[in-house]
Amino acid sequence: MILREDAGMSGRRERKKLATRAAVREAALRLAARHGVEKVTVEQIAAEADIALRTFFNYFSSKEEAVVATLAAGAEELIAEFRARPRTEPVLRALREAVLVVMAHGDAGRRDHLEALHLIRRAPSLVPQQLAVLAAQEKALAEAIAERLDQDADDIYPMLCAATVMTALRVVFNRWLDRAVESTDLPSMTALREEVDEAITELAAGLDRPGRAR
Amino acid sequence: MILREDAGMSGRRERKKLATRAAVREAALRLAARHGVEKVTVEQIAAEADIALRTFFNYFSSKEEAVVATLAAGAEELIAEFRARPRTEPVLRALREAVLVVMAHGDAGRRDHLEALHLIRRAPSLVPQQLAVLAAQEKALAEAIAERLDQDADDIYPMLCAATVMTALRVVFNRWLDRAVESTDLPSMTALREEVDEAITELAAGLDRPGRAR
Repeated sequence: MILREDAGMSGRRERKKLATRAAVREAALRLAARHGVEKVTVEQIAAEADIALRTFFNYFSSKEEAVVATLAAGAEELIAEFRARPRTEPVLRALREAVLVVMAHGDAGRRDHLEALHLIRRAPSLVPQQLAVLAAQEKALAEAIAERLDQDADDIYPMLCAATVMTALRVVFNRWLDRAVESTDLPSMTALREEVDEAITELAAGLDRPGRAR
Repeated sequence: MILREDAGMSGRRERKKLATRAAVREAALRLAARHGVEKVTVEQIAAEADIALRTFFNYFSSKEEAVVATLAAGAEELIAEFRARPRTEPVLRALREAVLVVMAHGDAGRRDHLEALHLIRRAPSLVPQQLAVLAAQEKALAEAIAERLDQDADDIYPMLCAATVMTALRVVFNRWLDRAVESTDLPSMTALREEVDEAITELAAGLDRPGRAR
């Protein structure tokens, strides 16, 4: 019984920690979007998230890490959805479905994600953090693909597939953001979903174009 | 006749400039490999390449740019070879042939390229330069693909294909370098060529894996 109470406690504590982490990264993103990453301090982020400065450092080691964490959250969701897809689905179909499910989630999450992308394109100080996040995402996705196929994570296929799908998503998101920068409002999410779908379908079809007849 | 002489002069001048540029980046790479990028100065690079300091800045704006230029040279060669492939070849076959042709070129060029990759993995100060080079390479390759297909460079296919092929090459080179770091000598170039071939064949085949039978 004590064991069970402990498990309950620890589950509740875990959920509370996840909620605090989300609150901190949302505060960091909000402030950075408003004032620019350079001008925001860790103290301001802690105040905005209504936590002590010491608590901030339990979750993130820098303001840059906190801002970029929203990107990581999107990829963590994608990997969790991919792991939950039925094993009867081919790998790329499972990946496409997982992306579409994540994109259909609450509007707030998506907007945060897109604002973070906007910020990162503008802030050179975020580049090293972003690279670290991208590398970790690729690795985590490669591990999920290897597990699904009962392959060794060192085999070339899982890494090739993970890196390529992440690249395709980056190309689609960047095109969409370029258009977003040109217009006053974000272009439609429907268009974004359609382009993600199209890009993964292209990959699955072999990404090739025939040569010309002689 | 004067026009023709001028063209000859300018062709000779152009070749001389290219040779100087290659000498400068090779000097930068050699010194950076020996002492670490941080410890090398622009003055030392100019001395090693036997040019005046002022001349250095006609070719590169920083030591980081000079070191990373070797990577750009590899991709420029790849794009030139790709442009030279017969239009009757499908896009991915032309890309694969172009990569294999570049990799079969003189051993010195390949070693320099691989040493630069080694350096870049170790030197955080090179990361922004490397990102700029990668983005420019992707864009140049996308333009070459669009031209080959008489497509608009803004269409999604050329960018998707360029970014994905570049990513596949990055995965293969990184795996090979990981093994190179573990051993005392560089692993065989034959193995590298085979893995490049395998990766592009995977892409052309649709990069998918079937689901399990129920």
